[in-house]
Amino acid sequence: MNADFEHLLQKYADLTIKVGLNLQPGQRLLVVDLSNLGVALEAAPLIRKIVASAYRHGARFVDVMWADNQVRLARYQYAGRDTFTELPVWMSRDLLEHVQAGEPLLTVIARDPDLLKGQDSELVAQEQRTRRHVTHPAELYIERNAINWCVVGAAAPLWAAKVFPDLPGEEATSRLWQAIFKVCRVDQDDPISAWETHIRELARREKYLNQKGFSALRYRGPGTDITIGLPEGHVWASAQMRSETGILFTANLPTEEIFTLPHRERVEGYVTVAKPVSVDGTLVEDISLRFENGRVIEARAKTNEAILRRLIENDEGASHLGEVSLVPHSSPVSQSGVLFYNILFDENAASHIALGAAYRFSLRDGQSMSDDEFAAAGGNSSVVHTDLMIGTAEMDVDGLLKSGDMEPVMRHGEWAFSV
Amino acid sequence: MNADFEHLLQKYADLTIKVGLNLQPGQRLLVVDLSNLGVALEAAPLIRKIVASAYRHGARFVDVMWADNQVRLARYQYAGRDTFTELPVWMSRDLLEHVQAGEPLLTVIARDPDLLKGQDSELVAQEQRTRRHVTHPAELYIERNAINWCVVGAAAPLWAAKVFPDLPGEEATSRLWQAIFKVCRVDQDDPISAWETHIRELARREKYLNQKGFSALRYRGPGTDITIGLPEGHVWASAQMRSETGILFTANLPTEEIFTLPHRERVEGYVTVAKPVSVDGTLVEDISLRFENGRVIEARAKTNEAILRRLIENDEGASHLGEVSLVPHSSPVSQSGVLFYNILFDENAASHIALGAAYRFSLRDGQSMSDDEFAAAGGNSSVVHTDLMIGTAEMDVDGLLKSGDMEPVMRHGEWAFSV
Repeated sequence: MNADFEHLLQKYADLTIKVGLNLQPGQRLLVVDLSNLGVALEAAPLIRKIVASAYRHGARFVDVMWADNQVRLARYQYAGRDTFTELPVWMSRDLLEHVQAGEPLLTVIARDPDLLKGQDSELVAQEQRTRRHVTHPAELYIERNAINWCVVGAAAPLWAAKVFPDLPGEEATSRLWQAIFKVCRVDQDDPISAWETHIRELARREKYLNQKGFSALRYRGPGTDITIGLPEGHVWASAQMRSETGILFTANLPTEEIFTLPHRERVEGYVTVAKPVSVDGTLVEDISLRFENGRVIEARAKTNEAILRRLIENDEGASHLGEVSLVPHSSPVSQSGVLFYNILFDENAASHIALGAAYRFSLRDGQSMSDDEFAAAGGNSSVVHTDLMIGTAEMDVDGLLKSGDMEPVMRHGEWAFSV
Repeated sequence: MNADFEHLLQKYADLTIKVGLNLQPGQRLLVVDLSNLGVALEAAPLIRKIVASAYRHGARFVDVMWADNQVRLARYQYAGRDTFTELPVWMSRDLLEHVQAGEPLLTVIARDPDLLKGQDSELVAQEQRTRRHVTHPAELYIERNAINWCVVGAAAPLWAAKVFPDLPGEEATSRLWQAIFKVCRVDQDDPISAWETHIRELARREKYLNQKGFSALRYRGPGTDITIGLPEGHVWASAQMRSETGILFTANLPTEEIFTLPHRERVEGYVTVAKPVSVDGTLVEDISLRFENGRVIEARAKTNEAILRRLIENDEGASHLGEVSLVPHSSPVSQSGVLFYNILFDENAASHIALGAAYRFSLRDGQSMSDDEFAAAGGNSSVVHTDLMIGTAEMDVDGLLKSGDMEPVMRHGEWAFSV
C-alpha cells in the first residue's frame, strides 16, 4: 500500500468508528457481514485500520468474524444438497447475546456480486433461509436500533472487476477504492466535519417532511406512475439515529436518503426500477412492478425474473412495500456515475422503495406495537427487505396534504423545497 | 498460483482430509487454530483446497474460524491493559459443543513466530490464560481423542521470512511450501500410500517398545545425561490413533515420533535442548534444564530466559515432564535441514520431551482415572504442554528392563533395533 492510500484508508476507518458507529469507550465491537456469513478476507486492509481505530477509541474488544467467498463457493460446488441447513457455529446464540448486551455491530461488505451466479437457486434460497432463521432474532434488535450499528464497504478484487470490467485487476480495485472514498467524502480534508454538515442538512429536510405529514406520495417519470400511501404516524428518518442505549450513530456510510414506511395496503400504479438489484448474490435487471391495494400483482425483469419471483414469494410481506426513500439525483453516488452493484451504495444514487419489512421506528409507537397492531397501522413485515431504485433525473414527486392539495417534493430528481 | 503448486496443494489437502482426519461422510468439520484464536488469513490458499476436499469426501459442513494476525497485534498496540480477558464469541460454548458432538477438528497453523515479539509478556500471558480458560474443556476432549482431529501447517509470508531470512518475500514463502511438501511426503507420487507405509513402520516400532515395557530411558549426548522413568502401564503411541468415535486418524502431519508419558516424579539429571522453542509467540533459545525427583530445579536459556521461567511457573505440572518422544535423527524434517520455528514440524526433527500435561491415553486406563489416581500413577497435569527437542546425531538412548539390564534403543540418534 502506498502512503496516500494508507492515509485515506485510515480516515475512512476513523470516520466509520466516530461518525458511523460513534463507538463508546468500553464497548465490545463485533465486525461481520451476516449476509455473507462473515467479513470477506479481501476486506483485511480496511478491517485492520478499523480494529486499530476502535481500540484507540477505547473498544474493550474487537471481534472480527471472517468468511471466505471461495470457501462459501466450494460448498455450492461440492457439498451435498441436503446439507444447506448447516451454519457457522457462532451465528445463532453468540450474535443474539452480543446485541442483547447492547454492544455495537459493524458490517463490512466486500462481496462479489456474481459469487453465486449459476448456482442452483434452490440452494441459494435454502442457505439464506437457514441463515435468516438464526440471525433474525438479532436482526430485530438491530432493526429497532437497540444498539449502535453501521454498514460500510471495502473494495475487493472480484467486486471491483464487476464494477470496472474494462480495467485490469489491481487498477479496478484501486478505482473502486477511489469511488468509495469519493462518495463517503473521505477524500475531503476533514471527512468527519463534512459528515456533520451533511447530517445536519438531512436532519432539516427530515423535520420538514415530518411537519408536512403527507398522506401519500405520487411518483411520475418514464415508466413510472405510482401513488404510495403513507400511514398516519409515519416518521421520516435520515442519517443519524439514536440507539436504545442512547448513542447517536449513522447506520450507513454513505447515506443520502430520507426515508419512512409506506402503508402496506395503499400502493397503486406501476414503477420501473432504474438500476439492477443484487438478490442473494444474483443480479436482477430491468425490473418493473405493478401494484394494486399495496400488493405486487405483476413482476417482470429482463434478467433473472425467476429470482425476483422467488424473492416476492418468500412470504406475504415480500410482495408489499416496507420503505419509501427520497434521494436527490445529484447525490455524490449518482454524480460518481458508478454503478456499484451493491445496495449500500446504489440506494444512495436514487430515490427508492423496498419490498419487504418496514422498520418499526418508521412508525410512531411502532416499537411497542404487537405484530397485529403494526400491520393494522399499515406496517409491513417480512423476512426480506430489498431496495429497488426508482429515482431518475426525470422523476417528479408530489406530496398529498391532508387538505387534499398536492405539493411538490422533488422535481427532475431534485428537492423542490428549501430548508 | 502455477499449476504445479496448485497440484501439490491439492495433494496436501487430500492427504490432510484422508490420512490426517480420515474425515467420514456426514461429519461436520471445524477448522481453527486455537492458539491463534482462529486460522490466519494467509492460510487461505490451502484452506480453500481443504474445504473443497472435505466436501468432496462428504462433509456435512466445513466451518472455518479465521483470525488475522494483524488484528491480534493491533489489540496489543492499542487496547486497554485491563481488556485482555475478552475473547471471540464463538470460542467457549460452540467449540465445546462441537467436540462433544463427536465432530472432527482441523488445526491449520500459519503463525508468525515473532508476532508478539516485544509485546508486554504479562499481556501475552493474560491473553493465553483467558484463551485456555475457555478452550480447556474442549481441549480435554481432543487430548483424549474423543474425536478425529489433525494439525497441519500452511506457509505464510511472515513465518517464511523467519525461516528463510535471506530470501526475498515470495521466494521465502515458496521455499517454505517446498519444505512442507517435502517433509509431509506430498512431493512423492502417491503421498497417501507413502503415508500408509510410514504409519505401518511406526506402528511396528511402537509395538516393540510396548512389548519391552522399559521402566526408564537413559539419554546421553553432549550436554545431556538424563534418566527418565516410565510408569507402570505406560503406552507408546505413534502416528495413527483411534478416536472414541471409532475413526482411525493421524493427529499430526508430519509425524515421525513414537511417544509415551514419563513418570512425573522419576526424572533425574540434566539435558540440553537442541533447538529454539516458541512459547506464546516468543522464541526461547539454548535452553538447559536440570531435574531432581522429576522436577525442574534449574532452568537456563541464552535468550528469553524470563519466558522460560514464566512457562515453568504456570502451575506445578509445568515444571514436570508430560511426554517423552523418540524420533530418529534421519527423519525427513531433520534431513531437510530447515528449522521451521514451529513445533509441529520441529518436534519431528529430533527426540524430545515435553514440559506440562501428559496425555491420558499414554497410560493404560488413564482415561477413566480421577486426577489423583492419574497423578499417583505418575501422570502429569498442567495447562501447558511444551515440547523441547533434545535429540541430536550424537544422542544414545538405552532402555532399562525390569530385569535391571539395559538395552540399546537408539545409537547416534538412530533406531538401534529392527522390526
